[in-house]
Amino acid sequence: MDEFGFLKDLKQHFNFDLIGDDCAVLPFSEEFDLLATADLLIEGTDFDLGWAGPADIGHKSLAVSLSDIAAMGGDPLWALFSIGVPDRLANSDFLTDLFSGINDLADKYGVRIAGGDVSGGTDRLTIDSIVLGRSPSGQAVRRRGAGPGELICVSGQLGGAAAGLLLLQSQSPGATFPANTLRQLRPVPKITLGKHLQTHGLASSMIDISDGLSSDLGHICDASEVGAVIEAEALPLDPLLGEVPEVLAFQRRSPIDLALHGGEDFELLFTTVPENEAAVTEAGCTVIGRIVADPAAYSIVLDGRETPLPRGGYRHFRD
Amino acid sequence: MDEFGFLKDLKQHFNFDLIGDDCAVLPFSEEFDLLATADLLIEGTDFDLGWAGPADIGHKSLAVSLSDIAAMGGDPLWALFSIGVPDRLANSDFLTDLFSGINDLADKYGVRIAGGDVSGGTDRLTIDSIVLGRSPSGQAVRRRGAGPGELICVSGQLGGAAAGLLLLQSQSPGATFPANTLRQLRPVPKITLGKHLQTHGLASSMIDISDGLSSDLGHICDASEVGAVIEAEALPLDPLLGEVPEVLAFQRRSPIDLALHGGEDFELLFTTVPENEAAVTEAGCTVIGRIVADPAAYSIVLDGRETPLPRGGYRHFRD
Repeated sequence: MDEFGFLKDLKQHFNFDLIGDDCAVLPFSEEFDLLATADLLIEGTDFDLGWAGPADIGHKSLAVSLSDIAAMGGDPLWALFSIGVPDRLANSDFLTDLFSGINDLADKYGVRIAGGDVSGGTDRLTIDSIVLGRSPSGQAVRRRGAGPGELICVSGQLGGAAAGLLLLQSQSPGATFPANTLRQLRPVPKITLGKHLQTHGLASSMIDISDGLSSDLGHICDASEVGAVIEAEALPLDPLLGEVPEVLAFQRRSPIDLALHGGEDFELLFTTVPENEAAVTEAGCTVIGRIVADPAAYSIVLDGRETPLPRGGYRHFRD
Repeated sequence: MDEFGFLKDLKQHFNFDLIGDDCAVLPFSEEFDLLATADLLIEGTDFDLGWAGPADIGHKSLAVSLSDIAAMGGDPLWALFSIGVPDRLANSDFLTDLFSGINDLADKYGVRIAGGDVSGGTDRLTIDSIVLGRSPSGQAVRRRGAGPGELICVSGQLGGAAAGLLLLQSQSPGATFPANTLRQLRPVPKITLGKHLQTHGLASSMIDISDGLSSDLGHICDASEVGAVIEAEALPLDPLLGEVPEVLAFQRRSPIDLALHGGEDFELLFTTVPENEAAVTEAGCTVIGRIVADPAAYSIVLDGRETPLPRGGYRHFRD
């Protein structure tokens, strides 16, 4: 099934024109827009109880939605959780541990748990993480603001979450999770950075890296009706990618493959005018390429050669 | 599994004091509170594809959450849907039909679809329906406002949704759904009435009937620290209960049993001071009992005899 295809069909069919960013931006008061986002995580697809504990799963569920608020440069305020619990997990301890992970992360950002729903009858643990926040009226950073000649920037490092996942999947069941898998198990939403970029006008468009750079940059280009050229050499590779060569070799994945297509890094990907280069570098971000006018252009420069960049081309792109 | 038990445990353990009404009431601006509610519906527990079409399921998913907004006397504004789609339903037609049901109901109340998530990998169709709305600051009607001596009132008629469910379950697979099952398939949220009651100060406490009168009245009593006595003769029975005696007999359910414990009528249950009796009757509501001071009192008067009212005593109470 193609999630993007279904959503695009539904959006067009019903003219759902509020849909198309990481969060819905809803005019609520003169001063603030309401931001709302929901992320559905399903056991076996989004996490595996063999390699993630209940507190990890709780943390990650909230982090994923907080990251959507970060991508708008917004302030998260409240979270609601709807949880479908299979019979085998229907005990207070499991849910308490799950909510410990949620609550610890919520506390860090002053987010309050405001409600939700708990239901039995599912075969797989199913968590819908809903976060509500706010942004000064009309100031939320959208996907659609990228212009030709602007710099493409990314926060932090890439590929660590995907490498962590490969590591976890290569473990024997029940083994202790190595610390270098934390980027996969406990992603950190870039709330503070997102607000900094929004407040200082440093992002003309923004998205968080959830599906993978090659896919998420495509969402910015589609919404902005522009193209992009990125420089492979400029990509900030996570140090973990250099530490586990045997795991990558076994899976036939290269570091750059994971950095481009791995996903779940929850870094911020944004565009800015060239005048802001020093300011974004100072904020710990890296310039990785440039927006071009032609919407059909979508490529990567590697070893001096420009080649088309496959979107979300999981396993299709190797150096 | 006991949903109420888990939620109560979690609420106490983590001090989640925003939880405890049909909606979260979140201070957003000086003028308005934000209302937020989420309801998780799971195939096989909350609906059955054998007797509900995709548009029915879409309609009901939204109606359930709109009813939570109605129970606060609020205005619904936006809805988000997170949907877990099993492979067997992963086609555009199914999702389009589901969203037709959602969209038709949303249009009736001026609610706009603002986002959500679609994910594969579930075994059962799973729908989290999230509705956001507003209420004048500090004016949302809570569960906790019922006082001794106040009247207990209910809108519309009771038991029709449960009778409709029995009818649907007694059908051969693939049969056309009879029109008298619409209370089960297409419940109508009482948005206009809820706002009327809130605006005119006619409800001191309110809840919607989702679990069943005997259970939902208990939530008002718990939150308000009071008791209740209801009059069996005063209960407004749905006409359908008189039309299908053979179905009820086969299931060994009586009309009053379904009216008390059936659930899913999505009528409004509220309390008001005796001076408002004419006004609530004029609004189409029925007085069915009275709030008493003793929190341990929870009973029903039937044939002149007062007996304890079992809470949500599905199948435990028969006349």
